[in-house]
Parts: sequence; structure tokens; C-alpha cells
Amino acid sequence: MNPISPRQLSPARETGWRRRWFDIIYRHDTPPSRNFDLLLIAAIVISVLVVMLDSVASIHARYAKLLYVIEWGFTLLFTVEYVLRLMTVRQPLRYALSGWGIIDLLSILPTYLSLLIPGSQSLLVLRALRILRLFRILKLTQYVEESGLLLGALWRSRRKIFIFFSAVMTLVVIFGAAMYLIEGPQHGFTSIPTSMYWAIVTMATVGFGDIAPQTTLGRAVTSILILIGYSIIAVPTGIYTAELVTSLREASHEPGHLDRRDCPQCGLEGHDPDALHCRNCGSRLPASMG
Amino acid sequence: MNPISPRQLSPARETGWRRRWFDIIYRHDTPPSRNFDLLLIAAIVISVLVVMLDSVASIHARYAKLLYVIEWGFTLLFTVEYVLRLMTVRQPLRYALSGWGIIDLLSILPTYLSLLIPGSQSLLVLRALRILRLFRILKLTQYVEESGLLLGALWRSRRKIFIFFSAVMTLVVIFGAAMYLIEGPQHGFTSIPTSMYWAIVTMATVGFGDIAPQTTLGRAVTSILILIGYSIIAVPTGIYTAELVTSLREASHEPGHLDRRDCPQCGLEGHDPDALHCRNCGSRLPASMG
Amino acid sequence: MNPISPRQLSPARETGWRRRWFDIIYRHDTPPSRNFDLLLIAAIVISVLVVMLDSVASIHARYAKLLYVIEWGFTLLFTVEYVLRLMTVRQPLRYALSGWGIIDLLSILPTYLSLLIPGSQSLLVLRALRILRLFRILKLTQYVEESGLLLGALWRSRRKIFIFFSAVMTLVVIFGAAMYLIEGPQHGFTSIPTSMYWAIVTMATVGFGDIAPQTTLGRAVTSILILIGYSIIAVPTGIYTAELVTSLREASHEPGHLDRRDCPQCGLEGHDPDALHCRNCGSRLPASMG
Amino acid sequence: MNPISPRQLSPARETGWRRRWFDIIYRHDTPPSRNFDLLLIAAIVISVLVVMLDSVASIHARYAKLLYVIEWGFTLLFTVEYVLRLMTVRQPLRYALSGWGIIDLLSILPTYLSLLIPGSQSLLVLRALRILRLFRILKLTQYVEESGLLLGALWRSRRKIFIFFSAVMTLVVIFGAAMYLIEGPQHGFTSIPTSMYWAIVTMATVGFGDIAPQTTLGRAVTSILILIGYSIIAVPTGIYTAELVTSLREASHEPGHLDRRDCPQCGLEGHDPDALHCRNCGSRLPASMG
Repeated sequence: MNPISPRQLSPARETGWRRRWFDIIYRHDTPPSRNFDLLLIAAIVISVLVVMLDSVASIHARYAKLLYVIEWGFTLLFTVEYVLRLMTVRQPLRYALSGWGIIDLLSILPTYLSLLIPGSQSLLVLRALRILRLFRILKLTQYVEESGLLLGALWRSRRKIFIFFSAVMTLVVIFGAAMYLIEGPQHGFTSIPTSMYWAIVTMATVGFGDIAPQTTLGRAVTSILILIGYSIIAVPTGIYTAELVTSLREASHEPGHLDRRDCPQCGLEGHDPDALHCRNCGSRLPASMG
Repeated sequence: MNPISPRQLSPARETGWRRRWFDIIYRHDTPPSRNFDLLLIAAIVISVLVVMLDSVASIHARYAKLLYVIEWGFTLLFTVEYVLRLMTVRQPLRYALSGWGIIDLLSILPTYLSLLIPGSQSLLVLRALRILRLFRILKLTQYVEESGLLLGALWRSRRKIFIFFSAVMTLVVIFGAAMYLIEGPQHGFTSIPTSMYWAIVTMATVGFGDIAPQTTLGRAVTSILILIGYSIIAVPTGIYTAELVTSLREASHEPGHLDRRDCPQCGLEGHDPDALHCRNCGSRLPASMG
Repeated sequence: MNPISPRQLSPARETGWRRRWFDIIYRHDTPPSRNFDLLLIAAIVISVLVVMLDSVASIHARYAKLLYVIEWGFTLLFTVEYVLRLMTVRQPLRYALSGWGIIDLLSILPTYLSLLIPGSQSLLVLRALRILRLFRILKLTQYVEESGLLLGALWRSRRKIFIFFSAVMTLVVIFGAAMYLIEGPQHGFTSIPTSMYWAIVTMATVGFGDIAPQTTLGRAVTSILILIGYSIIAVPTGIYTAELVTSLREASHEPGHLDRRDCPQCGLEGHDPDALHCRNCGSRLPASMG
Repeated sequence: MNPISPRQLSPARETGWRRRWFDIIYRHDTPPSRNFDLLLIAAIVISVLVVMLDSVASIHARYAKLLYVIEWGFTLLFTVEYVLRLMTVRQPLRYALSGWGIIDLLSILPTYLSLLIPGSQSLLVLRALRILRLFRILKLTQYVEESGLLLGALWRSRRKIFIFFSAVMTLVVIFGAAMYLIEGPQHGFTSIPTSMYWAIVTMATVGFGDIAPQTTLGRAVTSILILIGYSIIAVPTGIYTAELVTSLREASHEPGHLDRRDCPQCGLEGHDPDALHCRNCGSRLPASMG
């Protein structure tokens, strides 16, 4: 998915109603665009709720007609939004082929398709993907820094997490193959992919119990797998926590480690609190305020 | 819930028995009020145990009468306490409508209601909410600072945890909808809300196994969901640990590894508490306050 | 359990064979006593393995006699050890009533009892408790410091963990009672204690699935409980990790934060690496080697 | 497993094609050897996928012949590789008996054996072990340091983790024996080893549910075991995270936030890499090497 930010998209016109609507739809920093965002998120949440409720048999039986009308209402609303997005942007195709553009299209298409192909309406659950737009609220000022910190720590630990997942997948393949040999199809381990699914379910401590070892050897191997999984569960937590501790320390130290004394000679700021002379020009510093 | 602390409530009278009882009931820092707290907590724990035991069929069959008597005993006791609370406080309504006041009322009402409406006695389990009063013991001196530290770290990570839960819920909606499409009602995924319940149970590694994927595609998607959940489990731990590490460091640093004595000669601050001379220029330091 | 260390127990005689055996049995720092420890641990592990194997129906069917003989062999061996312990110590009763003494007695009694009361032999599993003696190997030099670090962090976080468990148990009581009301006996929630067992199994993400919610409301409440449990799982990890990080930092900083320059005047060691003058007497320090 | 690195193995000849092939096969730092590594890893992944697919009944039914041919293809390919490895190394036996040599042999043997003993083909899953060679990609420059950091933290916490696992296994033995006594064979706890398997599954929060307590006492004991497991899950995470935090801090501090230039005037060490003058006496510093 390649979300396109306002900086990459430019308005179709520099003035007029299309420019105004471009600002409302694509920007997030003016009062009207913020209201538009909130309304859109509300509409998305409600439309997803409608799809959810419609999937419940008892509700569908009673309110099928009402939900059908609401569904068409939201489809038309999102169609208008989609057309507006295409009209106000300078490169409509670029938006249409971006991650957000495809999701927006997928969320309205099924209702129209259901006129031609009955049953395709169930694809409306794709509308759930639009809920990703919820993360727009992260653009609200207070959350920007926080989510930056969280994602920054995730990004810096990406290589470590890749190594970790390689190790996990290797264990899954080896233990999956071993359990297929040991337990065999008669105990539910019908194939190596199925055994691997079981190994993932077990190592991650989910443990559905739909497949479970029944031989003594199988249970012994399972115990080993669980103990490995139990100690390995520490690794991503450890990686992420260690990175986050570092991030938080840096965030709190950066403005603080160095004090704000100006050098009276060259004007350099940011000296160690116990420095007597400017580290740049060597002239005497005023006393630190600490 | 809006617990009202003694500071917000004032006694009905400044002197006399109502003042004395106000101090016993609402304060936590005198010997009689502490004894009252301990007695009340003991009464709450025992009354909750009685409700628990009464719900066990075999015990109910044998001791129904005895438990019935005890129940009425506790109800009367708590009624007296409730009335006392109302009588000794200046603004009885304010207490009655506070979180604690409502819980206190709910814990006695069902027994009286059962005289009018048979069966409403089962609502007595609401008395379990009174167990929240257990946290009064946190007001004991030793625990105040500790729980402050734990809650402080939780409070400072509230925004990060909100972001995290938004991400989790988005995944739950998307994977819930996907699994409803893939597995369908015949494999237990009867509706999107049910699928979402399953997605939560799976991502949090609970894995009851009451609903489990049975198709190959469903199992593949489940494996992905589990691996995501497995790495995401690190995030709240990471957030909270990182905050707690910061809190602990500040708590241990704040009272000052280094004290704030200025050197009278060179002005350097931050000497060890047991230093007699400035570590920079060697002149005599004033006595430490440490 | 109150393990009695050699320091608290004194030998029955200051010289002679009883003194020699006291040193072998109760001390851990001489070659013969270390060999005794290793032999004892080997005997305990093998005897526990025998009890384990005897519990497997197919093995019991074939090797019942052999295992019976081995069992008596170990019982006699441990009896001799027990008598030796009593004979070589000055206060035999003090040993006999200590935690270790009771475990030692319990591990031999069932075999003798089985002569009088058939079936009491199954109590031999109590011998498993003797496996706790395995922790003697922690007395080996390398592990003393490490286990001290682990237990120290645990000890310092005891109050925080107590607060945490109070919160968990309160949630268990409240959600257990709620689910008993919502789901009721027909869905397996037969009593409040059973519901509480289910709440513990769910919050700790074990999720056996022997009891699972079946109503929509029950599943919604379960989802909330799981999400609470999911974020709460971070708390003990956070507490313990934060303490351990602090412990490790102190362990690594203590010898290193201050350098080893002697003050040429007063001989004080341990100055800050950038100190120019002794913080005690104020005389000039030699340059830091850093 | 004792992987033999190129440093330990020497080529059979100093020049000629065998030397050339030795470099391609056993080294990882030249373009041809890197290409060989990538091709080998691709072949291993595909051959493991073939074994996996062949284990799926429906695929085996349709593509048995095709998969049989591919299997023989890979077997011949890996045989050629194995022979080449033996021919180009100076001590072929040393390679053949190393961990990697045995795995390489085991991955080709079953296909040949299946000509003599029908059914032994299922041992081909052993080929999955070859997937361990995937970790060669860790030798790619970027990942060396990262994986070194992860393994270094693991290695330094090995003693703590050993202590932790001793504690876990002791709990497993004691609770396994207790549950065997309490629940007994009629509730699935057929033997002590089975009970121990259940205890591991429970403590690690996997909770298959294939075996679950049914008596009240059993459920109470299970609750205690779960709560212990719940708090103990923090320990490996705590150990590993604490070590990793220390590693990361050292890694970021070591290359020197401050560099080692001596002030030519006052001898102070530890200046910022961009400092031109001593922060203590103000005299000019030599140019930074940073």
C-alpha cells in the first residue's frame, strides 16, 4: 500500500471550488478539512457497523430491507466522495492507483456489482479496509510525536525482527515436519502445511486445541517446542522494549544534556554543563545555571 | 466511576458523634478509621465469599438456609453502614450519586428486591463490585508511592496505548471480516461480530478453540494473524516497560545523586553529597544539606 | 518453607565421624560435600523418574516388580540419609521440623505406609518435592551472583506485584460474577468459583476452551476481559524488567562510575573522571587515565 | 551441532579447479560464492516446499508423478553438491562428520533408501533441516552486527535463563505429580509424564484444552499454576530485555559520544567530536579523528 500524502498530490486548479474542495478533502490542518475528516471517519465506522450487523442472521432476517437502503445510501455517499477526489486532484489516475484510491473504489464497487452478479454483495466486507482511514486522527497534533516514537522504534528494530522471524519460521518448518512424521494424519496432522499451522499456533501460545498431539513422543516434542516458544516470546518484546527505552531516553535527553549558555564570543549554544570554556572558540563561558 | 475522596466530602457537623463517625468512615489516617477500614474489607470479602459459595449447586442444596441468614445479616450491616455514610456527610446526595455510593447501594438493594421480585437475588453478585474497596489498603503508607509509580507510568503511556488499541481493533475488524468471508457460517464463523470475537481471542493468544479455521486458506490467514499478534504483544509491554524504566530512573535520581551546592570560588554545581572541596578548583565547599 | 542453612545448624560433636559426616551432608564448599550433593541430586532425579515411569500404565504392567524393588532401594537409601542427618546435627528436632526435614520425611514415609495401608504408595509423588534440592547447585560459585540478581529484582518488586495481583483478582471476581449471570450454568459457567477459574484461564491467555462463552453478550464481555488481560500482561513484565535493568546498571556502574586515582594528599580513591581536585581535601589530583 | 566455518576447513589444493570450487562453496565473501549461496538457498527452499506439498493428500493424488521427478532432481543436485564438498576440502571426513555434513547427507539419503525400503521416503522431511542454511544470509554485512547483538545478549543471559528453566521444570514436576493425584486417569491425567506435559502446556499459556481439570480442587490448583506461570512469563522477557538494553547502550556509547583527544594544556580527555577548544582550560585541541 502506498498512501499518497497531500504533499505528493496537487490540486487540479489553483483557485475556485475545486481548489476549495481539494483543501477540504486532502488536507488535515484547517477547520473545514478537520470537520470533513471527522465526518468521513464517522461515516466509515457506521457503514462498517451496518455491514457487520447485516452479517448477523437474526438481524438480517428482521431488518434486511432497512440495512439494504442504508447500504445504498453509504454507497452513493462514498461514490460522491470518490468522484470529488478524482475531480479536484491534478493527477486523478495517480490517486486512483494509490493504495487509498484502490481501497476507496473497492468499498463502493460490490454494491454496484450486486446488481449484475447476485451474492457479490458479501464482498462489502472489503469496506472494512476503509477503517484504516481511522489513523488519520493520528495526524491530530498530540499524537504525531507519540506515534512517531512508536514507529521509529519499530523501524529501527526491523532487521532484528526479520532475523527473529527467520528463526521462528525455521523452527516452524522443522517442528512441523517432525510432528507430521511422529503423529501422522490419524491424529490430525494431515500434512506438513497443517503441521506448520499447528506449530505456529503452539509456539505463539495460542493453542486452539483443534489439533493436539496424542502420542508420548509427540507430546515430548511438543513440550520442547513450547519451552522454546516460551523463551523466544521474550525476544520481540526485548528488541522492541530496548529500542523504545533508547528512544525515550534520547527524546528526554536531547534538549537537556547540553545547556543553553551562549558563548559571549562566537555565540555557540549547547555546552556541557561543567564546561568552563567554549568548545568552539575557547573563550571563557559564563557560569552554568544547571 | 468517580471516587470521592475525603477532601471533597465534608462532615455534616463540626463536632459531636456525627463528626466522630465521619472521621472513622471517610478518613484513612487515624487508628479507629484504619480499624474500620480493615473490618469493612473483611466484611466485604466474607460477604462476597458467601455469594460465591451460594452459587455452587451442591453447597446451595445443603446450606441454603444458613447462607440466606448470613446474606440478610450482611445486607443489614451494609445498610447500617450506608445510612451512617449518608447521615454523617454534609452533602448526602453527592455521596449517593458518586461511583462508590452507587456501588454501595447496588450491593444491598438486591436482597430487599428479592422480597418483591423472586429471582432478583441473583443480582447479589453485584456485591462483588464492593471488592474494589480493597484498594483502600493501597492508602496504607508503604503502597502509596509504589502504586503512584505504576499508575503514573500507565498514565504517561495512555496515548501510546490508545494508538496501539486502535491498531489492534483495525486488525480485528479486517481479519474478522476476511475470516467470515473465507470460512463462513458452516465452520463456526457465523457473523462478522463472531469472527471479530474469534480474532480477538486469537490475537491475544488465548485461543479457546471453540471456533477454529478448517480450510487451508483460513489456516494460512490465521497463521499470519497469529504472527502479527505475536509481534504486537511486544508493544504494550514495550511501552509500559520503557515508561517504568524512565520512572524508576527519575525516582532514584531525583533526590539527587549530586547535590546543588555552588562552589563559592568557581561556581561549579553538582558535587557528591560527601564532597568537602570543589572537584574543579579545590576551594572549600559549604556543608551539604543532603 | 523455612530452609535451614548450615550456619543455623551446628554439628552434634566437634570431632569424630559425626563431625565429618555433618560437614559432608550439611556443607557445600568442600570436595567431599560437593560430591555428596551431586550424588544426592542424581539419586533424587532417578527416584523421581522411577515414580514417574511407574505411573505410566503400560510400563507399570511390564516392569511393576523391577520398579517396586528400585523404589524400596531408594526408600532405604533416603532413610539412611535421613537418619544420618538426624544423628550428625546438634538439634535433630529443629532439622526434622524444618521445611527440608519435613520434605525428606514425606519422601520416604509413603513406601513404609504402603505396607500398612494399600494404595498410599501413590503418595510417593510427594518425592517430587525433593527435586527442590536441585537448587543446591545454585550454590555453585558462578550462579550465586546471578540468582541473587534475579531474586533481588523480584524482592524489590514484591509490593508492585502484590498491587498487580490485587487488581487481577478483583477483575477475576467481578468478571467471574458477571459471566455467571450472563452465561449461566447451561453454558458451563456452573457457579461463581467456576466462572472465576474461567476468568483466570482467559485473562492469563491460557484459554483451555473447556468452558467458552456462547451468547453474544458473553462474547462481548469476554472480548473486553481479554483486551484488559492483554494489556495487563505487560505489567508484571514491565515491573520486573524495570527492576532488572536498574539492578544490572547498578551492578555494572558501581565499580566504574568513579575512577581509581588516589589523592596524593589524603589517599581518597574514587573521584569523578573529570575532577581536578580531591573532593575531600582539595589538593590537586593527577591527570585521569579515563 | 558443530558448524565448521571456512577458517577451520582448508582447501584440498592451493590452485586449480578444486581450489576455485572450494572458494565458491565454502566462502561467503566473493561475488561467485555469494551467488552460489543464494542459488543453494533457493534450491533448499523449493525442495522443502516440494516435500511439503507432497504431504498434502489432494496434491499427492494429482501430482505424485511430477513431484517424484522433481524430488529426484533435487536429490541428484544435492548429491552433486555433496560430492563437490567432499572433493574440494582437504579433510573430507571432518566435513562429513560435522553438523552440516550430517544434515547434508540426511537430506539426500532417504530418496536413495526408498529404492530399497519402500516408505522410507517419508524421511525426506529431514530435508527441512537444511533450511537452517538460511541463516547464511545473516553473513550478509548488514545483519552481522545485529545478529551478534541479539545472540550476545542471549549468551550473556544464559546462566540466568538456566536458573529460570530449572525453576520452571521443578514447578512442572511438582504440579504435574499433584494434578495426577488430584484428577487421576479418569479425567485425562493418565500418568505423571502426561500431567507434566499438561503442566507445561498450561504454564506457557498455550492451553490446548485436550486435557483440562474437572474437579474443584484441580481447578483451584490450576488457577494457582496459571497465576505462577503468568508472573513467571515476565522473567525471561525481563532477563533478555535488560541484557539487550545494556548491549544497546554500550553499542551506542562505545564508539564514543566523546572522543579521546587529550587537551595539550590541561590533559582533560573526552571532548565532543566537533570541539575545537578544551572545555576546561580553553586551549586549542588537536584535530578530531572521529
